[in-house]
Amino acid sequence: MGVIGMTSFARRAERVQPSAIREFLALAGQPGITSFAGGYPDPTLFPMRELHGIYDALLTDGNASALQYTASEGLPELRALVAARLSADGMPCTADDVLITQGGQQGLDLTAKLFVDAGDVIVTERPTFLGALIAFNPCEPDYRSVPMDDEGMDTDALEQVLRTTDRVKLIYTVPDYQNPTGRTMSLARRRRLVELAQEFDVVVLEDTPYRELRYEGERLPTIKSLDTTGRVVHLGSFSKILAPGLRLGWALATPEIREKLALLKLAADTQNGTLNMRAAAAYLGGYDIEGHIAGMLPTYRHQRDLMLASLQEHFPPGITWTRANGGLFTWVTFPAGLDMAAFQRDVLIPQAGVIVVPGTPFFADRPEANHARMSFSGVPDERLVDGVRRMGRLLSQALT
Amino acid sequence: MGVIGMTSFARRAERVQPSAIREFLALAGQPGITSFAGGYPDPTLFPMRELHGIYDALLTDGNASALQYTASEGLPELRALVAARLSADGMPCTADDVLITQGGQQGLDLTAKLFVDAGDVIVTERPTFLGALIAFNPCEPDYRSVPMDDEGMDTDALEQVLRTTDRVKLIYTVPDYQNPTGRTMSLARRRRLVELAQEFDVVVLEDTPYRELRYEGERLPTIKSLDTTGRVVHLGSFSKILAPGLRLGWALATPEIREKLALLKLAADTQNGTLNMRAAAAYLGGYDIEGHIAGMLPTYRHQRDLMLASLQEHFPPGITWTRANGGLFTWVTFPAGLDMAAFQRDVLIPQAGVIVVPGTPFFADRPEANHARMSFSGVPDERLVDGVRRMGRLLSQALT
Repeated sequence: MGVIGMTSFARRAERVQPSAIREFLALAGQPGITSFAGGYPDPTLFPMRELHGIYDALLTDGNASALQYTASEGLPELRALVAARLSADGMPCTADDVLITQGGQQGLDLTAKLFVDAGDVIVTERPTFLGALIAFNPCEPDYRSVPMDDEGMDTDALEQVLRTTDRVKLIYTVPDYQNPTGRTMSLARRRRLVELAQEFDVVVLEDTPYRELRYEGERLPTIKSLDTTGRVVHLGSFSKILAPGLRLGWALATPEIREKLALLKLAADTQNGTLNMRAAAAYLGGYDIEGHIAGMLPTYRHQRDLMLASLQEHFPPGITWTRANGGLFTWVTFPAGLDMAAFQRDVLIPQAGVIVVPGTPFFADRPEANHARMSFSGVPDERLVDGVRRMGRLLSQALT
Repeated sequence: MGVIGMTSFARRAERVQPSAIREFLALAGQPGITSFAGGYPDPTLFPMRELHGIYDALLTDGNASALQYTASEGLPELRALVAARLSADGMPCTADDVLITQGGQQGLDLTAKLFVDAGDVIVTERPTFLGALIAFNPCEPDYRSVPMDDEGMDTDALEQVLRTTDRVKLIYTVPDYQNPTGRTMSLARRRRLVELAQEFDVVVLEDTPYRELRYEGERLPTIKSLDTTGRVVHLGSFSKILAPGLRLGWALATPEIREKLALLKLAADTQNGTLNMRAAAAYLGGYDIEGHIAGMLPTYRHQRDLMLASLQEHFPPGITWTRANGGLFTWVTFPAGLDMAAFQRDVLIPQAGVIVVPGTPFFADRPEANHARMSFSGVPDERLVDGVRRMGRLLSQALT
C-alpha cells in the first residue's frame, strides 16, 4: 500500500540517472553565464526563411495528409531522399533501407534494444558520447571502453578487449569529429575495425551526427561503406545540418536489421511527426542542402579557430586539448589532480560565470575527473574569448 | 562470421512482430478499397487554417528557438497549458507534473519500461488496445486479460486475477470509449479498480486518447482523479483532438514517477520536436480547443449512428456489436466458428474490397478469432453504407 516506492520500479530504472549536461544547461540560459557546455548548433544558421515557405505551402486545404498518421518507417519520399544522400556518400541504398528516427538519439535506443540483453557488453570509445550511454543504459549492458588517440579508437586495444571479453554485442563509435573529443578515426583504423567486427562476429553502431560539419581534412569513407557483411548500423541526423527542433534522424541497416528496428520504432512511438517529415522532404527536394551546409562551415570553422587560439593564449601550461577538424567540440585535459566537476561548482561558475561539461560522465567505465568538453558553437566571439580568458585565469590560480 | 543472424538479436526482439493493423493499412489507400480498419481521425476536421497561421508566425527571424533543442520534459508553456486542461478535468496539477510524449504510444512505452521487468505481469482488458501490447512486448511481460462487459473491465474478475497471480506490476485500461470495443468503464468500476490497485499495490496505467470524443452520456471522472496514493499514470494525446501528424501526447504522474519517465524519455529520443510543441502551445493559448472539439463531435456522432444503423440493417442474425458512446470504434462479434482473418483474406477483400481489423491481435492472451474492430471514422457516408452492405451480404452467405 501507500505511495509507489523505488522497489516497484523495473530493474532498468536503476540505470536511468539525470544527465549531467542537462543540469548544466539549466544554467546556460541565465544572464551573465557563458556556456561552453551545450553543443547546440548555432541558431543563426537555421534556414528559417526556407522552412517558413515550406510550412506555408504544406499547411493548406487539401493537404491534410501532412497532419495525418503515416508509415512507421517514415515518409516514403523522405526515406528516398535520405537514401540518395547516403548513396552519394558511398553507401549505395534505397528508400527501403532507411528508417526515419526521432533524431539520432532514437537510433541509439532502438539499436541497443535490438541487440543488447542485460549483461551483454557494449564496447565504446574512451571517452564516448554521454547521450549514447544514456540511451544504452536501460538495456542494462556492461561496458568496456577502448582508449583513443588522434586517429580515433585504438584498434589494437579493441582487439585485446574482443579477445578477452565474452558477450560483446555492439561496438559503438562516433568516427567523425567525435562527441566529446572532436577526433576522427583514420581510414586504416576504420578498415581494421570492420575486420575485427567480422572476426569476432559483433555489430558496429556507427553514429555520424557531425559528419557533414567538416572544416578541414578529407572526407573519409564511413565504416558502413567498408562493411561487406551487413553488420554495421549507420546513424545520422538532421539536427546539425537542418535544425534540431524537427527531431529527425535516420538509420541505415541491412534489411533484416532495418525491419526489426522499424518494429521497435512502431512499439516506441508509432512514427515520427508527419508534418516535419514532409517539411524535411520538401527541403531536401526543393533546396540546396549541400550549399546550405557549405554556407555554415565558415562560421563553425571560425569559432573553432577562435576557441583553439584562445585556449592557447589564456590556459596555463600543463593543460592539453584536442584539435577537431569538424564538429562542435574540443576535449580538454587538466592535470591529474584537478576534479573538474568540483572546480566548476566551487570556482568556475561562482567566480567566472563560465560552464563547461566536466568529463566524468563521458566514460563508460573507470571515469576520469580531470577533463572537460568545451563546445565552440553559438557563443559570440567576444564572449568566447572572454570566457576562456576568465577560465584560464582561475585555472592558473588553481594550478600554482 | 557472415551476416548477422537472429541469434544475435536480444531476447526482446522475439517479442517484436509486425502489426496486423499496419499490414491492412497498406491496402487501405488503394482505390476501390473501403477501409474500416484505420481508426484515423477524420482529416477534414483538422484545424488547418489555424495551424497555418501558427506556423507562419513561429517560423520568423528572431524566433530560432522554435527550431532549437529544448527540455526533455517538454516545452514549459505547453506543459502548463496541458496541466490547466487536466486540472479542469478533475486532476489538479501543475506544469511540473506533466511530461510531453511523442504521442500516446510513447507514454505506454515509457511506463512499461519504468515498471515491468521480464516475467512481470501486465493485466489488460479483454480485448485491449493492440498498440499497447506492441509497446509493452519489448519489456517481455506476461499477460492476464480480464473480461469486459458494457460497464468495462469486470472488477470481480480483476480481483480474482490479482488474488491468484504473482508479480502483477501494471493494470492497463482505456476507460473511455475503449479501443477496440468503444466501451466505457462505469464509475462504480473505476472506484473499485482504484481500491483493488491499492489493496494489491499495483500501478494503474490509464490511457485516454478518446476521452474527449464523447457523443452521448455524461463525462465520468478519470481513474487518476479517484486515486489518492499516486499509483495512477494518466496518458492523453493530441492525435484525436488536434492532429496525429504532430505526434504529441502527455503523461501525468506523481513526481517520483514523472521524473523517472522523463529520464527514460531523454534516453529514448532526447525530447519532442520543439517546433510542434510551440505550435500546440500557440493553439491551446490562442484558440478555443474546447470549441474545436465540440465542433468535431457531430461529424463523428453521425458516422457512428450511420455505422450502427447499417450494421443493424445489413448484417445477418447471430452477429453482435458494441454501441460506443464516443471514440472511433465498434467491436463486432461473429459466430464462434468464423475465423475473421481467414474470412477477410479469402472473401471480404477479394469479393467486396472491404477491410476491417480481425480481432485476434487485440487479445493479450487466449486469442479469439471471431471478432473484428470496425472504425466509423473518415469513411464517406455512401461508402460506409455500401461497405457494410457488401460485407453483410458475404457474411449472410458464409453463415448459412
